[in-house]
Amino acid sequence: MTRRLLVIGIGAGAPGHLTLQAIEAINRAEVFFLLDKSEAAAELVAAREAILKAHRRAPWRVARLASPKRRAEAHIHGGARTPARETTYRADVADWHSARAALLAPLIEAELPEDGVGALLVWGDPALYDSTLRVLEAVRATLPLAIEVVPGISAVQALTTAHGLVLNEVGAKVVLTTGRRVLEDFSREGTTVVMLDDGTGLAALIAREAEVPPAGAAPLHIWWGAYLGMEGELLMSGPLAQVGPQILRQRAEAREKRGWIMDVWLVREPKF
Amino acid sequence: MTRRLLVIGIGAGAPGHLTLQAIEAINRAEVFFLLDKSEAAAELVAAREAILKAHRRAPWRVARLASPKRRAEAHIHGGARTPARETTYRADVADWHSARAALLAPLIEAELPEDGVGALLVWGDPALYDSTLRVLEAVRATLPLAIEVVPGISAVQALTTAHGLVLNEVGAKVVLTTGRRVLEDFSREGTTVVMLDDGTGLAALIAREAEVPPAGAAPLHIWWGAYLGMEGELLMSGPLAQVGPQILRQRAEAREKRGWIMDVWLVREPKF
Ligand SMILES: C[S@@+](CC[C@H](N)C(=O)[O-])C[C@H]1O[C@@H](n2cnc3c(N)ncnc32)[C@H](O)[C@@H]1O
Ligand SMILES: C[S@@+](CC[C@H](N)C(=O)[O-])C[C@H]1O[C@@H](n2cnc3c(N)ncnc32)[C@H](O)[C@@H]1O
Repeated sequence: MTRRLLVIGIGAGAPGHLTLQAIEAINRAEVFFLLDKSEAAAELVAAREAILKAHRRAPWRVARLASPKRRAEAHIHGGARTPARETTYRADVADWHSARAALLAPLIEAELPEDGVGALLVWGDPALYDSTLRVLEAVRATLPLAIEVVPGISAVQALTTAHGLVLNEVGAKVVLTTGRRVLEDFSREGTTVVMLDDGTGLAALIAREAEVPPAGAAPLHIWWGAYLGMEGELLMSGPLAQVGPQILRQRAEAREKRGWIMDVWLVREPKF
Repeated sequence: MTRRLLVIGIGAGAPGHLTLQAIEAINRAEVFFLLDKSEAAAELVAAREAILKAHRRAPWRVARLASPKRRAEAHIHGGARTPARETTYRADVADWHSARAALLAPLIEAELPEDGVGALLVWGDPALYDSTLRVLEAVRATLPLAIEVVPGISAVQALTTAHGLVLNEVGAKVVLTTGRRVLEDFSREGTTVVMLDDGTGLAALIAREAEVPPAGAAPLHIWWGAYLGMEGELLMSGPLAQVGPQILRQRAEAREKRGWIMDVWLVREPKF
């Protein structure tokens, strides 16, 4: 007998992102573990509760996990990447996963019967820049668990959908990365998508493109979206040099007003 | 008055991939345009019909498009990429999009009233290595259209789900590419995902890794899946040097037996 945990992608904002598989999984679980952590937590917890209210047919239980602060928060952004800093960063993230696992394991043990089915509702797709599966991997070191994943519509898909874009240029690659790594990972060939950017990644790319006009290269275009699929969705697009700075202003204003922001953007030489 | 076309992602194989948005969109359209083209067409058309039968509440009409053969089929795979070949490839693909648009435009005009809503059911996510949005862009050159996209679970997500993987390593990038470009686009840093590979991309990567043992680098691991979410789903994973050749054999056998195959794989240095 092994406790079963369903890791359910719920989509990146729109209630309609929910899949039939996700709804089926929601109705198989008896207890839902909530692990939110960001400043957006209140709204994101409310979104999860709305999903349960709308789609869960039987009563359910919720078990909440207090979140340890990420020790390394201070040096996640800013400064050049060096191999030493990368190693420190990864070690800090791993520590944070262990810290969460140490809190989560006893919670699962207490709240979920040995033959029970629990669930975690994960924003977007559980496979994309989300820590849930890594934390559960760490939990498994002390508590046997059968894990089942249900995919969800990701923020990347919410972005391309909102702009009516194809993610890839014809026969070209797509790079997905984060704000802290955009200068290293950006590729002039194909499309680069950036998540988890607090604005410093975008500012750095704008600055570099302005400084070093790449010989023979076309100017980049950007497609940006915030609060995608949610109330207050924001969309902007156009030449990076002109629209990029406007996005940064809009981003700062929106964040100030709402108290939090989630945004994602992609850049490429426009061909399509 | 503009004709409206809904481009609806239906997921990459599992009926449960369907989203609530997709179901809502299916019930808003009056006519469905079918554009299938591959050898897998019969099974994929059947999958679309099953979706309509299961989720469409009112009767519906279907309009089918005969497919022009892609002129460039012969040189899509094999051989080194050169800038000239890339240009030819892209031009051939663009020609093929125009050819399809030239067939599709009159079909839409004939089958869809001017204030009507039509739909195209797209495998996986419409934004990922799919020609539908580009063909419609070409149609718009002659026929005004309002286009609305509904995202769908992609084959990449079906792959990570089936293996319980996180797509990205901690703080690292993800590269999405196709079989014909894997040698150029593969990145030792982070994760590389390969779609649209007829086996030659995988064979080429196996060969290169065997020839040029990268100094200081860990051996690559591969995670592979075929017919994901469908009957006969196949999964394999392990060290590329050992498992890669087994995958190629399994792939050839399965393709032979079923008459077609769709598979997707990812490689990286295993850390997680
Ligand atoms: C921790 S990651 C989780 C991503 C999630 N697993 C997914 O598949 O979308 C959070 C990042 O996703 C992006 N994001 C998620 N939801 C979003 C939304 N509704 N609008 C814009 N960006 C979003 C932002 O880049 C944000 O920083
Ligand atoms: C023309 S592309 C379309 C991709 C689709 N738009 C998506 O989002 O998954 C077709 C490729 O997708 C991948 N694919 C689609 N469905 C799949 C499945 N059920 N199992 C494995 N691979 C699949 C294969 O790499 C195949 O060559």
